[in-house]
Amino acid sequence: MTFRLRVKKDMTKKDIISELDPLFYPRGIAVVGVSESPLKIGTMTLLSIITGGFEGGIYPVHPKADNILGLTVCPNFKSLPDDTDLVVVCVPASAVPSVIEDSVDAGIRAAVIISSGFAEVGKDGKRLQDEVLKIARDGGMRFVGPNCMGICNSSVKLHALMNMMMPIAGNISFVSQSGTLGTMNMLIASSYGVGFNKFVSSGNEADIKTEELIEYFANDPDTKVILSFIEGIRDGRKFFRVSKEATKKKPFIVLKAGMTSAGAKAASSHTSALAGSSVINDAAFKQAGIVRAGNGSEMLDLVKAFSLLPPLSGRKVGILTAGGGSGVLTADACEKYGLKVHNLSNEIIEELNQFLPSFWSHGNPIDITASGMFGAAGFSSITRCLDTMLQSDDIDGMITMSFDFLDMFDTIFSRFQPENKSSTTEIASIITPFMNGLTDDLVSVCKRYDKPVVAMGTSGCGLMESYGIPSYDDPSQAAFVLSKLAEYKEYLEKQ
Amino acid sequence: MTFRLRVKKDMTKKDIISELDPLFYPRGIAVVGVSESPLKIGTMTLLSIITGGFEGGIYPVHPKADNILGLTVCPNFKSLPDDTDLVVVCVPASAVPSVIEDSVDAGIRAAVIISSGFAEVGKDGKRLQDEVLKIARDGGMRFVGPNCMGICNSSVKLHALMNMMMPIAGNISFVSQSGTLGTMNMLIASSYGVGFNKFVSSGNEADIKTEELIEYFANDPDTKVILSFIEGIRDGRKFFRVSKEATKKKPFIVLKAGMTSAGAKAASSHTSALAGSSVINDAAFKQAGIVRAGNGSEMLDLVKAFSLLPPLSGRKVGILTAGGGSGVLTADACEKYGLKVHNLSNEIIEELNQFLPSFWSHGNPIDITASGMFGAAGFSSITRCLDTMLQSDDIDGMITMSFDFLDMFDTIFSRFQPENKSSTTEIASIITPFMNGLTDDLVSVCKRYDKPVVAMGTSGCGLMESYGIPSYDDPSQAAFVLSKLAEYKEYLEKQ
Repeated sequence: MTFRLRVKKDMTKKDIISELDPLFYPRGIAVVGVSESPLKIGTMTLLSIITGGFEGGIYPVHPKADNILGLTVCPNFKSLPDDTDLVVVCVPASAVPSVIEDSVDAGIRAAVIISSGFAEVGKDGKRLQDEVLKIARDGGMRFVGPNCMGICNSSVKLHALMNMMMPIAGNISFVSQSGTLGTMNMLIASSYGVGFNKFVSSGNEADIKTEELIEYFANDPDTKVILSFIEGIRDGRKFFRVSKEATKKKPFIVLKAGMTSAGAKAASSHTSALAGSSVINDAAFKQAGIVRAGNGSEMLDLVKAFSLLPPLSGRKVGILTAGGGSGVLTADACEKYGLKVHNLSNEIIEELNQFLPSFWSHGNPIDITASGMFGAAGFSSITRCLDTMLQSDDIDGMITMSFDFLDMFDTIFSRFQPENKSSTTEIASIITPFMNGLTDDLVSVCKRYDKPVVAMGTSGCGLMESYGIPSYDDPSQAAFVLSKLAEYKEYLEKQ
Repeated sequence: MTFRLRVKKDMTKKDIISELDPLFYPRGIAVVGVSESPLKIGTMTLLSIITGGFEGGIYPVHPKADNILGLTVCPNFKSLPDDTDLVVVCVPASAVPSVIEDSVDAGIRAAVIISSGFAEVGKDGKRLQDEVLKIARDGGMRFVGPNCMGICNSSVKLHALMNMMMPIAGNISFVSQSGTLGTMNMLIASSYGVGFNKFVSSGNEADIKTEELIEYFANDPDTKVILSFIEGIRDGRKFFRVSKEATKKKPFIVLKAGMTSAGAKAASSHTSALAGSSVINDAAFKQAGIVRAGNGSEMLDLVKAFSLLPPLSGRKVGILTAGGGSGVLTADACEKYGLKVHNLSNEIIEELNQFLPSFWSHGNPIDITASGMFGAAGFSSITRCLDTMLQSDDIDGMITMSFDFLDMFDTIFSRFQPENKSSTTEIASIITPFMNGLTDDLVSVCKRYDKPVVAMGTSGCGLMESYGIPSYDDPSQAAFVLSKLAEYKEYLEKQ
């Protein structure tokens, strides 16, 4: 484990690259609000930090217990080791001011305040929150929350979420104004192999706000894609400026809630921030080069694509299927999303005629048909076809049927009755090497060109994804993400 | 196994309720085009019939082999038992006419012709197809195909698909003009517990066409929902008439490809049928009461909802979450799809105040917050809340967070390191009974009312679905399906 920055007590502000480094790259972490009961938010967060594999110091703080989850307990903040850079706070709201005061006194530079009962519950809570903010500001401490679910940074195996969610490691960094929504979506993404670098459930954003995190992620070498779920933008001008800078460096995907009057009304009861009118947001988001997701599914589809793929340099798309129906639906989806199902030149058609079965579609979409695939040259012709298409200047990117049928056969065979298992084993023993070879060949062809290839038509099993080719159940998702890749590239070119 | 109809050789047309009964409810099945090699389309189809559990007679036909896949082989059609009602044909195209002739002579009433190389490959193929059609017509035989992937009927455990796909049993019957697309989507649906009754890959539709199958499914007591993937409608007037009749009896969901010029062009190369203009289709589909899916994902979302839920009698929707962000996104989605996020009356608010935590949102969406859920009365308050809402005349249906966190914790715990397994076991032992109790309670509340409840915000693990509550990753899917339930109900009321 390499710490990007060894935060030391005697460091001046100048020595610290960013004030948020102690938050994401602490040497040691104190956790307060833990107990011997496992079903407490503090204990669950501590368990998550331990089992996530954090290799720095982990220090539960409790006045009486000796040992919690196998760790030696510090009775108070004074007894914390010097390398404690971050405190995770899970005590009741009323106790938070004194905990923050003690933390500041102990020289801790960053906090994650998970405790709720602040601005979100009314005026008294707001006063308590202001008090905490003042103590932190006066003490030079930065904090996330309150009323949040925690943070992660897979670069240093730091997993401090109260619901113990641990995303798999990847290159997406995500700030979410909803902890539940953020962690749920990371869970879904992780289930199909898409990983995250940093995650922040930003809660009430008393101190550290979405805008500052976007800025931090934009400059963070471990982050390739920035993602944000936004309910309310507190400082529209700053958000616009920060986003415009960020999108120059890397894609920034936003799911914005409260875009309708019903949603805005719900948002104003959830956070104090104004959701804003959708029309103003649409224009501003576009000008800032932000990639917009219309809902959670689109958000996940987009992060997968931007996380895995090279840019799409134009809108001419080739389609490769072994089923005419999928080809038609894919062509429909491409046109719907402003992509061009480019006509094949005579040269390409001639070339494809060399190895495709005689009854192929002779156009784009290229349909080699189900029986074509099982023909003598079936599998190798798929790879050659993809190669021919990607080589051509007429094609900027490809949507291909995934051809990842091993998972499909696995599922099918799992429903077979025991007495027929031997036949399935025989079929599997014949199919498996073919299929593995096909996937290997497909992937090596894709890697030869700097053009995005997206797979569609699988149950999202993730074999293609593990090789860097995002895969979607439906062609419309494939066309949607390619259109957004094109949009972002066009934006960058205009700048 | 109960056969709805014992088809007998001496039956007259009058005795047979529908000419398609021998296709779906055969007493015995002959399979021709099989060999001792397992990786042949015929052999794979035979294997699927055997392992699918078909309890009638299964008769491989082969001139030389004695035994294929453990079954005694019939050397020719003359030696087939009298109860052979259906023949599945996988021989090369040129041999199909004589096979159909032999079948007719043997008194077989129905065929599934999987073989390709007919109208889809050009004029010669079309001629061959016409020849087959004439033989069948003259012999009183009906057939599916050619150039199709096969059929299923889970009522009699008949699984005759060339790619061995076996959907799980359910109440949806599906005719697809693309075999690959149809079977792929059944695979995906099956993976989250949504089952099918009958499936037909209709191929070139030389004899039995989509329209006739819709009519059959409309009158089929085992079918609750009709589904069709359509590339081209051959007889628009008949399609409209049949659909209008069908939708009076049960929901009919259609995914229509070729709705854009790029798609229509691709479709005309795939089938000879004209895809038609999207505007004409839109209006006709609406007048016939058809529920339209815009893409494959929407199609799957819709079949799940219509398969599991009671009708939605109005557009007033209640939202229940434990995360404000999800509530806001759900409200956005409801407004987008024309549903009403109905204001709660003072009476309901008063009633909810009795048991919800003080900091609940005091409005619709009802947000009990993540910490509210883990509070003392957390779990029971979720159930009471749902009960209160469903009881009210102000609410026609509900979208609720799934609260199915067991799968989530399973996934989270699976990433835990071995040395921390004991803690996870302890947490699991505390959480599991709570969660199981919650799901049981939720489901029993939902069953008490004849109003649809849709869950959202899970990774589609299917616990809720196994209890009849469809579950979606994203709130926009939940709102979309409710809006379509409302649309269908409104259509029926207007008739």
